Amino acid sequence: MARKRKNESGAHGNLDLRAVILAGGSGTRFWPLSRKKRPKQFLSVISKSSLVEDTAGRLKGLIPPSKIYTIAVASQTRVLKKLLPVLPEKNFLVEPEARNTAPSLVLATAVIYLKNPEAVVVALPADHFIEEVEEFRRKLLLAARIAHASRKIVLFGIPPDSPSTAYGYIHVSSRDREELDGEKFYRVRGFREKPDLSTALEFVQSGEYYWNSGIFLWRADAFAEHLRDFVPEIFSAWIKLLPALRNNERREVRRIFQEIPALSIDYALIEKVHGALMNPGDFGWSDLGSWGALYEYLPADESCNVSRDRLIPIDARNCLVFNPGKLTALVGVEDLIVVNAGDALLICRRDQDQKVRELVERLKKEGPDYL
Amino acid sequence: MARKRKNESGAHGNLDLRAVILAGGSGTRFWPLSRKKRPKQFLSVISKSSLVEDTAGRLKGLIPPSKIYTIAVASQTRVLKKLLPVLPEKNFLVEPEARNTAPSLVLATAVIYLKNPEAVVVALPADHFIEEVEEFRRKLLLAARIAHASRKIVLFGIPPDSPSTAYGYIHVSSRDREELDGEKFYRVRGFREKPDLSTALEFVQSGEYYWNSGIFLWRADAFAEHLRDFVPEIFSAWIKLLPALRNNERREVRRIFQEIPALSIDYALIEKVHGALMNPGDFGWSDLGSWGALYEYLPADESCNVSRDRLIPIDARNCLVFNPGKLTALVGVEDLIVVNAGDALLICRRDQDQKVRELVERLKKEGPDYL
Repeated sequence: MARKRKNESGAHGNLDLRAVILAGGSGTRFWPLSRKKRPKQFLSVISKSSLVEDTAGRLKGLIPPSKIYTIAVASQTRVLKKLLPVLPEKNFLVEPEARNTAPSLVLATAVIYLKNPEAVVVALPADHFIEEVEEFRRKLLLAARIAHASRKIVLFGIPPDSPSTAYGYIHVSSRDREELDGEKFYRVRGFREKPDLSTALEFVQSGEYYWNSGIFLWRADAFAEHLRDFVPEIFSAWIKLLPALRNNERREVRRIFQEIPALSIDYALIEKVHGALMNPGDFGWSDLGSWGALYEYLPADESCNVSRDRLIPIDARNCLVFNPGKLTALVGVEDLIVVNAGDALLICRRDQDQKVRELVERLKKEGPDYL
Repeated sequence: MARKRKNESGAHGNLDLRAVILAGGSGTRFWPLSRKKRPKQFLSVISKSSLVEDTAGRLKGLIPPSKIYTIAVASQTRVLKKLLPVLPEKNFLVEPEARNTAPSLVLATAVIYLKNPEAVVVALPADHFIEEVEEFRRKLLLAARIAHASRKIVLFGIPPDSPSTAYGYIHVSSRDREELDGEKFYRVRGFREKPDLSTALEFVQSGEYYWNSGIFLWRADAFAEHLRDFVPEIFSAWIKLLPALRNNERREVRRIFQEIPALSIDYALIEKVHGALMNPGDFGWSDLGSWGALYEYLPADESCNVSRDRLIPIDARNCLVFNPGKLTALVGVEDLIVVNAGDALLICRRDQDQKVRELVERLKKEGPDYL
């Protein structure tokens, strides 16, 4: 009982687990619900709360609010402070500009390193969905222990359920793994960026490839060592960043931040590191990368229509409708995505939701005010 | 030249032609654009002006504003006065309650009879569309002359282009007709209410059946004679109505109005009259009875999409979109009717637009506030 109480407060023996929620994204794959000024992580598409609130909420009792950080640009940080009022003011890390995840995570890890070099950082995208929260929490804690004990970077790889060409793949081998509390941790052999369909098919059939979830764990000090050993150009920024942060030299921090290449942390660091470990993240993960993905995770009526708003279907099937606060009547239609938000309405065949990207490209030229 | 100027002022020899625009309808076939408080005749679906404005506009130069009347209940009359400011205040006839077209036209004809018993009344539904306006005007004038000279009721019958089961049909015979200025006027043999499909098919193939357009002409005094000869129960109301109107006894007028059966003028009078005349109304008439009908009359883009609002189609075809003031993006869809209006959105397969009626019936029970 005493142990349980200790766990709920977020203490796990020597383990000082801290979360960094990457909340700076600006995708428009949920257009027209998501807009430049209201990116996906701020939308309430799965529950009544926003995706970033859900992301923080999954950590409740596992990591105390004092050890949960967000990182985003200033304008997004203002929104984050309203959505996550339990986090301490200083935990809302502000990135001087949006420069992809490598600069963000170097900065966040440096902030945490100054608190405790042995702390384990878990980097969490703000806009993903996890269906089996208890399983995720159990695995997260095990992965953190492994990251702490091994000083290795630990990743969650998602067992692929289709030959998707939209994800990066992690390559592992079943001959090369270790176990902790019955959990398998595979040594990462390599990464493969978004493959073509036939390659993706081979990957899935081989059983040796997992989707890269974007959830990573590392000890802060091990992170620095990896930079030193594998990415010296970023390590030089790191060693300047620590005193600038310690002395609260904001202009200097900004200058150093802008020195770091605007790359993803996957590409800048993780793919270069030898010996990273992967655990199969079979906890119902989705990056909610499209309207169609959302359709899979929301409860449907007896005609397989999904809507959280008032819906009257007449001979209508398999539709996803977002029309907040309004009534939608569907007559004789099927397999549609219908999204009515503000000054724009999208009607899209469900199997063509990847074309929303093409649409957004057209809007950049023909109607940027609608983005 | 002098004669032309005379015509433009609306004078046609002895002919005193006056129009009664039946503007009291409350249909919801254009839901969700049309609502209880904003019926179809007030919508701008074809041009930038409302259908009732278009109806009055077609008479310009043919009938002077002083001889154009509207009839509707008080609440609708307030809207009509704003839409048709050139009409004299007293020409906005107010019906005490909505009781179908027979009471309305008895009242309006009585008002006109008191001005000039020999005047010819043309009854015009406020919410129809006519594509070939000049041809309509030419025929209207000829029909008025025939109505004046013959004292008969004159109708326009629409040459059917499909075996519609939504219209009433007028039965005529080619052996039984007269001509005026080269125009054929057929003696009406009978009326057939909305037939079943196989009957409608026979009608269309026979060449002897026309759709009832709801556009009727009569001399005011002949109208009274027809009531006397064929509908004595309405004639008794008529003879009380004249002095009540002359003396401006509003409560008495209301009382008499409510005595008149709440029937259509077709059913109450025209179908009972012997010797009515029909002219083929081949001037591009449509009652705009459904969203699909509207699709036929509005200009389409190269992919056959119809929208007067901002539309971005990607692999989208044959869609009708109403989304006033907003952007609509269509991706991979075809043959849809999309109407976004206020608190309700309709997505309907174009060939199932008749189910909007079923939808409206459901709304009466499940969501009357949306009507």
